[in-house]
Amino acid sequence: MAFVNENYLKLAAGYLFPEIERRVSSYASAHPDRAPRIIRCGIGDVTEPLPSAAITAMHRAVDELAKRETFKGYGPGTGYEFVRKAIADSEFRERGIAIDDEEIFLSDGSKGDCGSILEILAFGADAGNRIAITDPVYPVYVDSNVMFGNTGAPRGDGSYDGLVYLPCTPENGFVAEVPSQPVDLIYLCFPNNPTGAMIDRARLNAWVEYALKHRAIILYDCAYDAYIRDPSLPRSIYEIEGAKECAIEFHSFSKSGGFTGVRCGFTVLPKALNAYTRAGTKVSLHGLWSRRWNTRSNGVSYPIQVAAAALHNADGKAQIRQLVDFYMGNAAILRQGCRNVGLRVWGGEHAPYVWVATPERMKSWDLFDLMLTEANVVITPGAGFGRCGEGFFRISAFNSRPNVEEVVRRIGQLSFATAGAAGA
Amino acid sequence: MAFVNENYLKLAAGYLFPEIERRVSSYASAHPDRAPRIIRCGIGDVTEPLPSAAITAMHRAVDELAKRETFKGYGPGTGYEFVRKAIADSEFRERGIAIDDEEIFLSDGSKGDCGSILEILAFGADAGNRIAITDPVYPVYVDSNVMFGNTGAPRGDGSYDGLVYLPCTPENGFVAEVPSQPVDLIYLCFPNNPTGAMIDRARLNAWVEYALKHRAIILYDCAYDAYIRDPSLPRSIYEIEGAKECAIEFHSFSKSGGFTGVRCGFTVLPKALNAYTRAGTKVSLHGLWSRRWNTRSNGVSYPIQVAAAALHNADGKAQIRQLVDFYMGNAAILRQGCRNVGLRVWGGEHAPYVWVATPERMKSWDLFDLMLTEANVVITPGAGFGRCGEGFFRISAFNSRPNVEEVVRRIGQLSFATAGAAGA
Repeated sequence: MAFVNENYLKLAAGYLFPEIERRVSSYASAHPDRAPRIIRCGIGDVTEPLPSAAITAMHRAVDELAKRETFKGYGPGTGYEFVRKAIADSEFRERGIAIDDEEIFLSDGSKGDCGSILEILAFGADAGNRIAITDPVYPVYVDSNVMFGNTGAPRGDGSYDGLVYLPCTPENGFVAEVPSQPVDLIYLCFPNNPTGAMIDRARLNAWVEYALKHRAIILYDCAYDAYIRDPSLPRSIYEIEGAKECAIEFHSFSKSGGFTGVRCGFTVLPKALNAYTRAGTKVSLHGLWSRRWNTRSNGVSYPIQVAAAALHNADGKAQIRQLVDFYMGNAAILRQGCRNVGLRVWGGEHAPYVWVATPERMKSWDLFDLMLTEANVVITPGAGFGRCGEGFFRISAFNSRPNVEEVVRRIGQLSFATAGAAGA
Repeated sequence: MAFVNENYLKLAAGYLFPEIERRVSSYASAHPDRAPRIIRCGIGDVTEPLPSAAITAMHRAVDELAKRETFKGYGPGTGYEFVRKAIADSEFRERGIAIDDEEIFLSDGSKGDCGSILEILAFGADAGNRIAITDPVYPVYVDSNVMFGNTGAPRGDGSYDGLVYLPCTPENGFVAEVPSQPVDLIYLCFPNNPTGAMIDRARLNAWVEYALKHRAIILYDCAYDAYIRDPSLPRSIYEIEGAKECAIEFHSFSKSGGFTGVRCGFTVLPKALNAYTRAGTKVSLHGLWSRRWNTRSNGVSYPIQVAAAALHNADGKAQIRQLVDFYMGNAAILRQGCRNVGLRVWGGEHAPYVWVATPERMKSWDLFDLMLTEANVVITPGAGFGRCGEGFFRISAFNSRPNVEEVVRRIGQLSFATAGAAGA
């Protein structure tokens, strides 16, 4: 008799975004006249076309596949040298961070890597790894850990036994404090999804010190690093001394190069990073991660690798800056629009997400429904990101400028707008 | 302290193909004059350009990404409906097999899926799933199970405690017999890699009956189904009655459409397929596999999905037939060339692999070294595929015609050629 992975049965019924989609579809079918008015600021999906540097590169790579002389079959499981070098140069060495080409592992995006990394670490209820996640948090971290058996039973509120939740609130600027108890794996994401918060060098330094002291590993999600506007803020955890001994960094081209449908990102796993056997023997994770990729994958599609490399040439970088500037212009409009109706606002300064307190402590799914039905605007309810997300919602800046302006106009007409403004 | 997945430490030092690569590189550096003569028939990598249907489709899809109006961001985690439908129509429904679009899960290739499927099944030493693999076998099945903790310790010969090995020998035509003991998960691959063997309907029927009786699951790897020449042989396990209740099928476009560098394949997981909790409750795996993909991935790159769909239009199908005919012409030449020097040969009739007994019971890695140094031809030593692979080697038919003819010429000049022919 074949047995199922029963950990899956602990998962809450709907992953956040499918649940949003279900509610939107249901509203749209019930109100076909309103359906075309719906503006989606829920899922953080880019809307602008790909940078032309990537387009040109992909066409060229496709042409290579059309000729025997330039055809490419199986590539290295962890990415071609040309793209690993382009990334290591452009994202690290040119900014003074010593990362080897071999420490870059190309993948189809950071969503997968944030889960797959658990494969090389001890998993299961008795594996010994105590896992800390921030609250609110990108649900993929939690759900991946549930699937690997790294949690206990679900509680009624969407949280799980066995995880250590680090609250992120207005009081701590939505940057989790170093915990008082020892933990072994810590997911951090800056610029943060969903709150848009950014960590400063001193607080990141405290995290690195904590991890070194406890021989813990920080799983540092950098998917939004292109949105950091203040050069004094750390764009990579490896700017902090000692981080190569305690941190794995996840990057994505989804939000920089608009690759949400193209699928490419990378993980940095430094050779200096170790984990331990239960008997206390040190094991370098770099070899295990290489082995994982070479056994489980044949690497990223060749044309996509060529496009990813092109994002790092002069044209590609300039085009990414333009895209980011555009979306950050949207974020500024959304911030101001919410403030104008008296809402409390965070994020949107170094991140494409604006994090907003619901008016009058409204539940976030109630606000979701109100925004959907009154304004035909789709936002993401904070509760979908964890207990501490309750009472907040996320608006994504990924949209056209006319749509963003229309969203702000509609928010201004909502029933709570006047009350909120009066109370502000 | 962060703990490592100690199962990785059980893995043999080198995955087969990296080890081959190491020996070839080492020979090439030591003999730079001979290096350009080396012909690779080791790894099964295609050599011919992509079908023009796929090239045209990719260019068109890339152009869509260049315009705001046609841009595609996040797609469904399990593939766009247009490609799932094209596959279900072309590979199943048009051949009389009732498979729903929703039972098709697009992926970046079957290599990954053969391992990832273990995520939704109970894993770990005490999980209860007894896993059977054929011997010789594609090493990815074994290594993936080792990584998930589904095996015991390695034995000296490359095999692992805790796995049930099903010997495939000349006596059973390299088709594993249904075991006498109960097992829960069984990896089968037809046309077979590495032996090139094909299963007939009666023997596949026996496997389906076994699985239904034991409530076991067959993990059926179909990566080479395009090479089946005899229409009376089953191209899909779902041609056998009852298979939808007991089999998951893995497909690849690597060897049909030449997608080894493009990366696309799919898995069929029928809605009727169940596994069980330890308490004996039936759980449909379809929902779990959907959840796995939606949590761990954002699907395959859009241009690649468009190309995969194009392989299923009339042009694409005709071009695949031409590619397969070409490689099968190579296989026939290799079969004959080996026979001419007195070697015993199998496979190469419904598969792009020719499986050859080493002369005079030579060890397969010794033969590898001899072929590399004397003939400058890279083959794959059978021992790399398991204990029962010892005494055999695999030659891949994926090469240019002149290279294949040259390989045959060189084999004819090897020191064992005369002796072998004399003994035949």
